[in-house]
Amino acid sequence: MTRSECAAWLRERDGFLILNHRRPDGDAAGSAAALCRGLRALGKRAFVLPNPETTERYLPLTEDFYPAPDYRPETVVAVDLAEEGILQNNAGEWAGKVQLCIDHHPSNSGYARQGWVDPEAAACGELVYFLLLDLGAELTPELAAALYIAVSTDTGCFRYKNTTPQTLRVGAALLEAGAPIDLNRTLFMKKSRGRLMLESRMIAGLEFFQEGEADVAAVTLRDLAECAVTEEDMEDIASVAGSVRGVELSVTLREVEAGSWKVSVRTGQYGNASAVCAEFGGGGHGMAAGCTLQGSLEEVREALKAAVGRHWHESPL
Amino acid sequence: MTRSECAAWLRERDGFLILNHRRPDGDAAGSAAALCRGLRALGKRAFVLPNPETTERYLPLTEDFYPAPDYRPETVVAVDLAEEGILQNNAGEWAGKVQLCIDHHPSNSGYARQGWVDPEAAACGELVYFLLLDLGAELTPELAAALYIAVSTDTGCFRYKNTTPQTLRVGAALLEAGAPIDLNRTLFMKKSRGRLMLESRMIAGLEFFQEGEADVAAVTLRDLAECAVTEEDMEDIASVAGSVRGVELSVTLREVEAGSWKVSVRTGQYGNASAVCAEFGGGGHGMAAGCTLQGSLEEVREALKAAVGRHWHESPL
Repeated sequence: MTRSECAAWLRERDGFLILNHRRPDGDAAGSAAALCRGLRALGKRAFVLPNPETTERYLPLTEDFYPAPDYRPETVVAVDLAEEGILQNNAGEWAGKVQLCIDHHPSNSGYARQGWVDPEAAACGELVYFLLLDLGAELTPELAAALYIAVSTDTGCFRYKNTTPQTLRVGAALLEAGAPIDLNRTLFMKKSRGRLMLESRMIAGLEFFQEGEADVAAVTLRDLAECAVTEEDMEDIASVAGSVRGVELSVTLREVEAGSWKVSVRTGQYGNASAVCAEFGGGGHGMAAGCTLQGSLEEVREALKAAVGRHWHESPL
Repeated sequence: MTRSECAAWLRERDGFLILNHRRPDGDAAGSAAALCRGLRALGKRAFVLPNPETTERYLPLTEDFYPAPDYRPETVVAVDLAEEGILQNNAGEWAGKVQLCIDHHPSNSGYARQGWVDPEAAACGELVYFLLLDLGAELTPELAAALYIAVSTDTGCFRYKNTTPQTLRVGAALLEAGAPIDLNRTLFMKKSRGRLMLESRMIAGLEFFQEGEADVAAVTLRDLAECAVTEEDMEDIASVAGSVRGVELSVTLREVEAGSWKVSVRTGQYGNASAVCAEFGGGGHGMAAGCTLQGSLEEVREALKAAVGRHWHESPL
């Protein structure tokens, strides 16, 4: 489907229900909220299915758009959803019934009957922006703010590699339409005390190997308790170990119950994260993968360091 | 001077020497490099005066443009320089002789004979971009990269409040012209081990007051030695204490010699940083000010907490 076909398809329909994915991030919540607002501005009935895993930060985006319990949608749309396996966990009844998906993941599985999938877009919000432009929906400040949250969070505020000239131009249009630049303060410049304390401990305890080009960070149950972190505080915690200049591959160990560790491996140029995690029955991509290990912190750490060593000369791509 | 007058003025002249300010940041170094490249592309002779305080990070921008010792410029231009008092410290001979300044500081003192000063611009690099556009200089990838460094560093990669739709559009044009998005990795996503260790200590030692809306961070001589930080690592160190969610005013104490503390006070909504620092013979703006205090860490910290309390209900504006 092209963008204009997608816009035409939406224009012809009504009675929308918008779904997104598990552990919704800013792009999922912002895209759903923006699409709902835009469709309503065109005089249509549109609702967002409440996502029980929405964190406090993103709740205000969608909470005004929840349908009544007896709402029977005519048109089911998913945003930012790459595959039905990660559909929000209260949407089981819609599996196999998604009529349209709007998505930017190159891995989109084609689960929906129709889809506009553009992997060039840094965020699904970028696609929703152009759709609403095509549909002639007025870009109110609230709508612009929802799209700004979508686009900025998926690009780390225009820092990540997925940022394109188009992303920056969409950002410019959204600020112009009234998205407040102050959103960046909350989204990117402030962290909770608990998160900062946890990061501080992780950094103090970093262990370097492979001549300083790799490191391991650990988060123990004790750290979690003493720093009083929330689930929201744990967002992207695996990026902390990778923020050291000179480090190309980083391992993050998170104790999920006594002696059980969730492992995240990320790499830039060296080593294949997926091959490392496959040694322990895990998986993922070459640049980001995960697995679970049992043992003491020392045992797990040494096992991973050895595995990283074995795959150091493989490429992540 | 308007932008087109400024472009016309440059077009008529030759034999340029470009100056910037003490402790040059990305905007100073990037703007100087870009202007020099642009003028050369127009067939003119142009050089950048070496700035002895340029950090390693920004040295590659300008080091190819240093003049021979006997170079006699005809046209002296300053970029990103608000007043002659902070002229780079080897440029004394040019004080009172700057013929043109291109700047975005609202506080520009008008020291130059001619000036294009636009405080709406987030970075001086934004102004240099438009000037070079007017002059018809080709936007090569190297030139675009210099301007991208200028614009992105002065806005914290488009996060700070000074970012406007125009800033984002300039960013888009620069990426399109070949500025590599990978620059963000070095500039915004990686920190040295020493810097991270120091931040980790600062955060672990934060002391909160004013019901958690204010905090104090300290950097002792011992921290500096044990973390082995460089001067470059200290850039914007005063922002660490302010990164805690809920904190509106932050104080950073940096021990410069035993028992002597350089103090930085920053605030958002509450308290007047300049009034706090004035109590100790310092100064600055309502939102960011500094002073120097003598005493033990405890003495200095308590003195500042008391002063912050006295000015808590004043506005920073």
